[in-house]
Amino acid sequence: MTETPVRPSLARLLAPRSVAIVGASAVPDKPGWHMVNALSDFDGAVYPVNPRETEILGRKVYARLADIPETVDLVALVVPARVSVDVLREAGAAGAGAALMVSGGFGETGEAGRALQDEALAVCRENGIRLLGPNTSGFIAPARGLNCTFMPGVAEITPGGIAVLAQSGGINITLTLIAQRDGHGVRFAIGLGNAADVGLAEVIDYLADDSDTEAVALHLEGVPDGRRIYQAIRRASAIKPVVALAVGRADLGGFAVSHTGNLMGDFALTHAALTQAGAVVVEDLSELIDAAHALSHGRIAPHRDPGVGLLTGQAGPGLLMTDILRDGGAHVPDLAAATVERIEDLLPPMTFIGNPVDTGRPSATFAEVMGAMADDAAINAMALWALLEDDLVNPVRLATECRARTGKPVIVGTGSVPSLAAPAFAAAREAGVPAFDSPDRAARAMRALVRDAQAARRRALDGAPAAVDMGIASPGPDPLDEKDAKDLITAAGIATPKRVACNDRAAAHAALATLGAPVVAKVLDAAIAHKTEVGGVHLGIETPAALDAALDAIDAIPGGTRRYLIEETAPAGVEIILGGTNDPSWGPTVLLGLGGTAAEAMGDVTMRLAPLGWTEAASMLADLRGRALLEGFRGAPAVDRKAIVYAVVTLGNLLAAYPAIREIDLNPVRVTPKGLIALDALVVVQPMS
Amino acid sequence: MTETPVRPSLARLLAPRSVAIVGASAVPDKPGWHMVNALSDFDGAVYPVNPRETEILGRKVYARLADIPETVDLVALVVPARVSVDVLREAGAAGAGAALMVSGGFGETGEAGRALQDEALAVCRENGIRLLGPNTSGFIAPARGLNCTFMPGVAEITPGGIAVLAQSGGINITLTLIAQRDGHGVRFAIGLGNAADVGLAEVIDYLADDSDTEAVALHLEGVPDGRRIYQAIRRASAIKPVVALAVGRADLGGFAVSHTGNLMGDFALTHAALTQAGAVVVEDLSELIDAAHALSHGRIAPHRDPGVGLLTGQAGPGLLMTDILRDGGAHVPDLAAATVERIEDLLPPMTFIGNPVDTGRPSATFAEVMGAMADDAAINAMALWALLEDDLVNPVRLATECRARTGKPVIVGTGSVPSLAAPAFAAAREAGVPAFDSPDRAARAMRALVRDAQAARRRALDGAPAAVDMGIASPGPDPLDEKDAKDLITAAGIATPKRVACNDRAAAHAALATLGAPVVAKVLDAAIAHKTEVGGVHLGIETPAALDAALDAIDAIPGGTRRYLIEETAPAGVEIILGGTNDPSWGPTVLLGLGGTAAEAMGDVTMRLAPLGWTEAASMLADLRGRALLEGFRGAPAVDRKAIVYAVVTLGNLLAAYPAIREIDLNPVRVTPKGLIALDALVVVQPMS
Repeated sequence: MTETPVRPSLARLLAPRSVAIVGASAVPDKPGWHMVNALSDFDGAVYPVNPRETEILGRKVYARLADIPETVDLVALVVPARVSVDVLREAGAAGAGAALMVSGGFGETGEAGRALQDEALAVCRENGIRLLGPNTSGFIAPARGLNCTFMPGVAEITPGGIAVLAQSGGINITLTLIAQRDGHGVRFAIGLGNAADVGLAEVIDYLADDSDTEAVALHLEGVPDGRRIYQAIRRASAIKPVVALAVGRADLGGFAVSHTGNLMGDFALTHAALTQAGAVVVEDLSELIDAAHALSHGRIAPHRDPGVGLLTGQAGPGLLMTDILRDGGAHVPDLAAATVERIEDLLPPMTFIGNPVDTGRPSATFAEVMGAMADDAAINAMALWALLEDDLVNPVRLATECRARTGKPVIVGTGSVPSLAAPAFAAAREAGVPAFDSPDRAARAMRALVRDAQAARRRALDGAPAAVDMGIASPGPDPLDEKDAKDLITAAGIATPKRVACNDRAAAHAALATLGAPVVAKVLDAAIAHKTEVGGVHLGIETPAALDAALDAIDAIPGGTRRYLIEETAPAGVEIILGGTNDPSWGPTVLLGLGGTAAEAMGDVTMRLAPLGWTEAASMLADLRGRALLEGFRGAPAVDRKAIVYAVVTLGNLLAAYPAIREIDLNPVRVTPKGLIALDALVVVQPMS
Repeated sequence: MTETPVRPSLARLLAPRSVAIVGASAVPDKPGWHMVNALSDFDGAVYPVNPRETEILGRKVYARLADIPETVDLVALVVPARVSVDVLREAGAAGAGAALMVSGGFGETGEAGRALQDEALAVCRENGIRLLGPNTSGFIAPARGLNCTFMPGVAEITPGGIAVLAQSGGINITLTLIAQRDGHGVRFAIGLGNAADVGLAEVIDYLADDSDTEAVALHLEGVPDGRRIYQAIRRASAIKPVVALAVGRADLGGFAVSHTGNLMGDFALTHAALTQAGAVVVEDLSELIDAAHALSHGRIAPHRDPGVGLLTGQAGPGLLMTDILRDGGAHVPDLAAATVERIEDLLPPMTFIGNPVDTGRPSATFAEVMGAMADDAAINAMALWALLEDDLVNPVRLATECRARTGKPVIVGTGSVPSLAAPAFAAAREAGVPAFDSPDRAARAMRALVRDAQAARRRALDGAPAAVDMGIASPGPDPLDEKDAKDLITAAGIATPKRVACNDRAAAHAALATLGAPVVAKVLDAAIAHKTEVGGVHLGIETPAALDAALDAIDAIPGGTRRYLIEETAPAGVEIILGGTNDPSWGPTVLLGLGGTAAEAMGDVTMRLAPLGWTEAASMLADLRGRALLEGFRGAPAVDRKAIVYAVVTLGNLLAAYPAIREIDLNPVRVTPKGLIALDALVVVQPMS
């Protein structure tokens, strides 16, 4: 959440005119040799630096950075951690604008390493040097032969439109190899390592503005500056597609910290925040590259529920694709009657004409069928599956023509034996048609297009939500008891039961008379977080005698004299949980979940960053597994879901407007067909510092 | 559930000495030409049949099947549906043992097609012909050049150890292409199509006994004979690994039926039944081939929770693998202190030595570190990730040596640019080491090994559960009311509240006195399935007056005079659902779920086939998302989970022993720390036929 100070841009790091390699080696297979070798085709100047060598791989070697005859943009350090600070000072003196440190032994290793990293960073800051790493595999930009890495064989990586950006150097390389395996190449592949200076958010900003980057493929392990990353993705995804893979579903213990020094954070929150920002979140490395590839060749226009048309030459793959699309929440709509009639004229009887359309063995009419589907108003994008058979059907040509004519994205799935598949996929690359060799990959890529369009719509409708001045006093610094907490959320606009805070029994009995039976009696003490567990909550009190019994029980709670909170009884309804925190990484967040013990045991909750707009808040309802409970379950009336959305937005505004609020927990909140009411409220404010 | 009559084995279909192609064509690219061409390298005899040709692709053509000079094993029909019955008659007359029908237009197209299919089947049965199809892509067995398919380029498919078996012909081809893309080849690839005669179960039986089949990769779309498939997989998976992909998570509507004529069935039940049978169930086509490949090179011995050792040369991929393994329920255990000490001597400081062990850039000690991990008693299988760098680390050689020395399976993940990766993966194939080009694929393959070992343990501990003679009378044929239903399950061994069925008020009042307040009063009528909704359930009755009020309410239910059921009040506890059905495809099944409205809205249930053993039943508890509720949630005591397991096994025995029982629904069942008690019981028996 700290503001990033204005620092020199990343241009001298990621688009340098010259690179010096300190620690360049003449010994083949040493990292310092690989780095010089990797830069063989660089279109800028390369200056190996090593006081004990004169020539490496045909290049003149300089003894020191100061000896280089021009001001170098980027200095790559292939030297041990302990000498890196000295080299950075020399780089600063020589006027370098950027440095890359591949060595480990810094912040990821503990106290001493952290100190060394801080020292290196300080030298960089003093000298206006932007630093990539340490503890990274480096970066490449194949279009320029700019391969600042020691990965063997890097010269084989071809230029492409996908920019890979990974926190892990190893994942950065692996993703690059997958992109190459699939024939895409990369625009950039950047491993951040410890990210002492240059972090994920700033590179996303850079890639958003890089006109040769067609899609950004992100890998995240731990997110120290979540809010900045959220903002960067929000901005970038409005310009070009962003796809993300986050690690950390399972408990990874100390290993995660040891790697880049980052804590993993809550996975569900990370997933929600990335999606809210506009990234398409995927589940594995191949899917990351597949989705980035498909999106880089065409996005669906912003849409609540875009319709996918599916045309298949073989039923089984079509069935699998339909299953993946529908199970993933993508809409495979019915075609218009006119479309069906048009297709019926084109296909033999006994073919399946719905959505999908299954042509049976594709024939000469395949293209016309595809055109009829793509013309249907319900269809926003087309997916196509056909094995390569003879020359009857050329999926790549069909896709190219259909896309050009209709402007709707088309994704192709096709397959054949290797010798026949290779030219087909080469043609797809040539034509810029996203093509995949299995139906599930094609379907998942289409699902990515759908999610991208849905995120774009939410962003468009909500604009940029800003914290609203709620005109109420900031809470704290003293701890809030339940009455204070309820007064605060009531002032913010969330309903609570009528209540009276009572210092003695007489006041409590007066409250019973005023509020009318039945009432609820609770202990009122900011120091008691779990009132029910200590016998501090008594429901359904009808008589003065019952009230006295309840107050006796409250008085019996150890720890001194108690105040009482007497409340009216709320109407019956469905119980939910509302809440939020001020997360150290992501900033203000809100949470919605189903209430009751069973739902809590199942953890049926969903989160978003705050402040948030109505569309985003409404989308949270669909995340709940038990959402049927809110929609009129087993004959019960549907509850007021707009009230839930309103309360979520309100809580978000409250958390965003008052940073002193560390946590809000409204549990339970009762929702009826006519609104909601928070039955309990816990508000934790930042202790005085 | 019908018994399969004894029919001739599949040998003349899947291992024929000779093949005739009726509908062979001299026109290149016609299916009948492709089929002759595909058999170019067949090691048996090939007889093209076509009255209008004399030679096709250099082979003599016969006018009719009767003209062929030997008795042909397999007749492939590449002819339209309408002439197929005649050809089958000729094949029968010629003594053929098997036929393959690729044409569609049969059972998948409706009434007329179904009749034609039945006629074809009848001709086959009369003549002892085993029929593959119709509506299939055929099958291949590359080791013999036995390519009975019209897939172009099929000659490129190489022999391997994986047998692909798919209900869909299109998926059969697609899986074969994926296996070939990844360099594995196939032992068989068989598309069943409509499976008029030869079905999934029988082919699984065949493949289980085929010594050249090292792993079976199944694709299922709809399962008309689930119980037979269950039995076949149970038998096969004890001999060799079986991996399965089932389609049908989403609602696929009419398209599924139109394809092969099968209904999809309940996906959760299909998934549970396949797992229970011993198959490893996966989620996509590539994962199916990856898992089959890995398992074909070594299974983990049966184990409750096998330990995976993970050694990585790059932290990021190691983290991703750990995440996938742990999130998928695989155990990545701590290493013994002695192992850690041994590894500390081998690695530089600041490397992460736990599990995973992260060596940082791999060095010469990598092999020794791997050996130390593999020697640890907590480790049952090793996974290894290392990018190919120089000659420091040869993952394939390391894996080969480690596996040979320890007998523990090893899975390798590695990557490089295409020119360097190709020889490494070729070496892996040569050595029989399962190797994958991304960490997530390697981790998912390892997860498959873990699941296979867990299934094997459940199978080993439970043996073959058989229906138990429960010594109670079979229920029915009349509908059972709640008292009858509770008497039945009580006799089977599941506790129920003490109860009195009352014909009048006097009896009800006597019951209140006998049972002791508070009691429950319910309407007793087999015709009322949802008692609560009609005001037929009254809890907490303390006094005769309250009882009368309850009985008044029951009497007010429309529809005539009612009997009453008066019951003692059950102790408080956690509510669950128990039940079961006699499924038309899978036979007797049992169901366990969490109770209460919220849990039901979330559908937190799990199923198994019955009868089932203790280990299998116990494994159901782990399937529940809300299982924490049973384990002592928020300070509550843990409930008696053994009682749940006992009740599940008992219900399974009941359903298996009494086929007349169509459905049992115990909802709610209350579980306490000391047992469980079924508060309501619905037992549906088969109506008189």
